[in-house]
Amino acid sequence: MVGTHAIKNGNLINTENAVVNIGRRDVQFSFSVYESLRIVEGRAVFFEDHMKRLESSAKGIKMKNSFCADEIDKWIKLLIKADDIDRATIRIYLVGGVDLFITASPILAYPDSYYENGVITYTYKGERLFPQFKTSNLLMSYIALEDSKAKGGFESILENRDGCLLEGTRSNFYALKGDELYTANDELVLSGVTRTRVLKIAKDKGYKIVFEAPKLLDIKKGLYDEAFISSTSMATMPIKSIDEYVFNSNFKQTMDLHILIRKLESKD
Amino acid sequence: MVGTHAIKNGNLINTENAVVNIGRRDVQFSFSVYESLRIVEGRAVFFEDHMKRLESSAKGIKMKNSFCADEIDKWIKLLIKADDIDRATIRIYLVGGVDLFITASPILAYPDSYYENGVITYTYKGERLFPQFKTSNLLMSYIALEDSKAKGGFESILENRDGCLLEGTRSNFYALKGDELYTANDELVLSGVTRTRVLKIAKDKGYKIVFEAPKLLDIKKGLYDEAFISSTSMATMPIKSIDEYVFNSNFKQTMDLHILIRKLESKD
Repeated sequence: MVGTHAIKNGNLINTENAVVNIGRRDVQFSFSVYESLRIVEGRAVFFEDHMKRLESSAKGIKMKNSFCADEIDKWIKLLIKADDIDRATIRIYLVGGVDLFITASPILAYPDSYYENGVITYTYKGERLFPQFKTSNLLMSYIALEDSKAKGGFESILENRDGCLLEGTRSNFYALKGDELYTANDELVLSGVTRTRVLKIAKDKGYKIVFEAPKLLDIKKGLYDEAFISSTSMATMPIKSIDEYVFNSNFKQTMDLHILIRKLESKD
Repeated sequence: MVGTHAIKNGNLINTENAVVNIGRRDVQFSFSVYESLRIVEGRAVFFEDHMKRLESSAKGIKMKNSFCADEIDKWIKLLIKADDIDRATIRIYLVGGVDLFITASPILAYPDSYYENGVITYTYKGERLFPQFKTSNLLMSYIALEDSKAKGGFESILENRDGCLLEGTRSNFYALKGDELYTANDELVLSGVTRTRVLKIAKDKGYKIVFEAPKLLDIKKGLYDEAFISSTSMATMPIKSIDEYVFNSNFKQTMDLHILIRKLESKD
């Protein structure tokens, strides 16, 4: 069953033994990077992209990664077999470059109503450290998301010092205006595995991609038709509202992209 | 012996069992706060100040602290007795507000030569998130310090977007000009337990305290006579150089403050 076992440096362990000692400097300083993947029909979706990003995240914070993609691939398969996994969310957690854990939990999925009605979001003023990389330095994301949840929100959208909406706490962010898709420049946000696909698919469908993060002020002026977020678990997820501003939309464009991304998963 | 045991939620455990499961959301998001204290002659130095800051750090990130100072005091004494501790550095680590660990390690002390010659420092451009609070969101500090160490430095001094030197990665920062002591405004830096004492002692000695973070440019112009950092383990520590700029000083003012702070410890 999903979650019974985990992997530590290639060894199958019981999940309750997936622990780190708090005396370790790398643990105390959040010197770790991670990846979240979907297992669908017993296969890790977009595995190579996730491995590339894990490597890039490690390099980005000057962490030596002692593990290679081939090993990790083998270990994920070992875990899939041990716990007879069909669908799951897998987390790869590289601590200090020297310990690599793989854990599995029931696949993260959202109710249909989220996709039909869009999700409520709130903004939070803050900028991520080393935004392109997926590190454990997540306190701001935690606080921003708690802040949004307390108001009934599903996600928090980070607003930088210039009033631009860059990304969510666990998602990338986009807004649509006519046939233009707006999103922050690559350097300013997480290099999302799903983001890469969103941009490719949108381009193929004829959208013009504008690498310019939408300003909150312009959103509130009604300059954009739709807005959405993306992540491995959400694919694209329509946004119903940002703070007090409610989009007057049926989210058709966002959901068209959604369907195409989910189709890619089975082709991967 | 120091380090044999640790405390978890009041229970004496072997230090190798001071672990957290990596599946926990608070662990994954670095949602924890901590304190480092000195044990000298079997007593926790400035204990009440550290407890106040622990409480303030928890509040600052909206973490409910399930533990009170009286309990923690009792548990530190339990650990001191169990491992027959005379001198040590104690770390209190509050994870998600629900698990409190106390670990001990040999007291952090620095060679006399550091105090005689001053330490080498390098600047790093970056600003801490929630700077007043002592949280585990320490990746930038880790990277900045590694960067300094790679160049032979002892500490890294964080330079904000305005070119001001705010604090070290594990210390507060000050510069002296005549009878004026310059340091950043309280809101911008860690509320250091030692910092509070530095400022009080300096004031008592006749210094005028100027809450204005020195600019790196002004340091390099030679506008300051001495510069130093402070922390629980260092008390005040003279700075020999910042980047390529070398102070032409015997560090007398810094070391006068140092002696007074260490005297306070035994009076506490």
